[in-house]
Amino acid sequence: MKTEGRNAVLELIRSGRNIDKILMEKGGKGSLSVIFAEARKQGVRVQYAEKAALDKESESGRHQGVIAFSTDYEYYEVEDIIAAGSGEDNGGFVILCDGVEDVHNLGSILRVAECAGANGVVITKAGCAPVNESVIRISAGAAEHMKVARIANLRTAIDQLKKNGYWVYALEAGEEDIYSQDFTGNVALVIGGEDCGVRKITRSLCDKTVSLPLKGRVNSLNASVALGVAAYEVLRQRR
Amino acid sequence: MKTEGRNAVLELIRSGRNIDKILMEKGGKGSLSVIFAEARKQGVRVQYAEKAALDKESESGRHQGVIAFSTDYEYYEVEDIIAAGSGEDNGGFVILCDGVEDVHNLGSILRVAECAGANGVVITKAGCAPVNESVIRISAGAAEHMKVARIANLRTAIDQLKKNGYWVYALEAGEEDIYSQDFTGNVALVIGGEDCGVRKITRSLCDKTVSLPLKGRVNSLNASVALGVAAYEVLRQRR
Repeated sequence: MKTEGRNAVLELIRSGRNIDKILMEKGGKGSLSVIFAEARKQGVRVQYAEKAALDKESESGRHQGVIAFSTDYEYYEVEDIIAAGSGEDNGGFVILCDGVEDVHNLGSILRVAECAGANGVVITKAGCAPVNESVIRISAGAAEHMKVARIANLRTAIDQLKKNGYWVYALEAGEEDIYSQDFTGNVALVIGGEDCGVRKITRSLCDKTVSLPLKGRVNSLNASVALGVAAYEVLRQRR
Repeated sequence: MKTEGRNAVLELIRSGRNIDKILMEKGGKGSLSVIFAEARKQGVRVQYAEKAALDKESESGRHQGVIAFSTDYEYYEVEDIIAAGSGEDNGGFVILCDGVEDVHNLGSILRVAECAGANGVVITKAGCAPVNESVIRISAGAAEHMKVARIANLRTAIDQLKKNGYWVYALEAGEEDIYSQDFTGNVALVIGGEDCGVRKITRSLCDKTVSLPLKGRVNSLNASVALGVAAYEVLRQRR
């Protein structure tokens, strides 16, 4: 869905609705700087482009230098995911994404989460791709069956999870591997983006950093494959 | 043959394969200096050029400032893979691809195979993508360290593997799941393409069809994720 024009976009940002990104005219003047500041405050991604690119995207022909793209995907709250997890006999299972910008990765992660029986996936407003049409398509429909929460800051979610008795693991190169863990209680797995993995600051909020054993000379697996292996180890231990 | 991108070129150099030359962006930053140092160490010629020249040579559009020119990918024989497996204390481990046409899937499969410690991957001349530049790039260089055999017919390879004491499993929806198997001997896993999975005729040649438990409503995982989960279960049992 596209929202065009300065007032409309500003109201959209202030409404707190989910916005995928805002396209803004390079070198545009006046209230665009107010819109930029508001977007930053809410953690909405702003991308600059030439006027011609906005003209091309515009459906109304009156974009005034700014177009917001949002999806109708309805996100859940972290509380909803925790509530779903509390109904499980073998403990809740939540996946958190730290800087998963690539839509292919996010789509695959949702697919893995659904197949492995996770109760929900948490993504961030800044640094993660939103659940847009591409993500839904790549997830092979799993996005429709998975509770996804989109929040400003992972710290809040990690705190909530810990308060609810979750052990929070960062999946990242580390000293202990996934096979020496006990995943039979409430478990949250934090997964990072393709390039930099789980950020240091996020790792510091987790209870533990756990890794997959790597036998070869190439030093990492794709994010969704790594999550698949770890999520199925959680599933295996709970059978 | 051209190999593009920093990780892929670095892995190519480290693999010791023959490289004609490396084209590197003049004034390029970051890990290019690491690649340059590694190339010098291995006696590979590095030629500097303007970004425009690399853009022109690039086939993927994602050269990241470096392109390596080498002779064609050298395939191994199934015998080589079996020989490598026979040297393993805990049994050999071979992956066979049945109709993996998508270069992304094949690249990811090679990456998974390498990380999970497989002895080799068998692909078919018809029905599977060949190991080309895209596959090597997507494999993040794993293709350079993995023995890949490219043969006319999977039947021949399956027969050879069985004669050498391998249990051959088709990874496909089936009655038994991977967690009820004993993977501690010689193991071969057959994986199918994204659309149709392992073909019926191929399944009939295998000793068993095994599947991953699926908890959700979406009924399958991506091929490389499914392989990742199964290959790591093999690895886990052998630790």
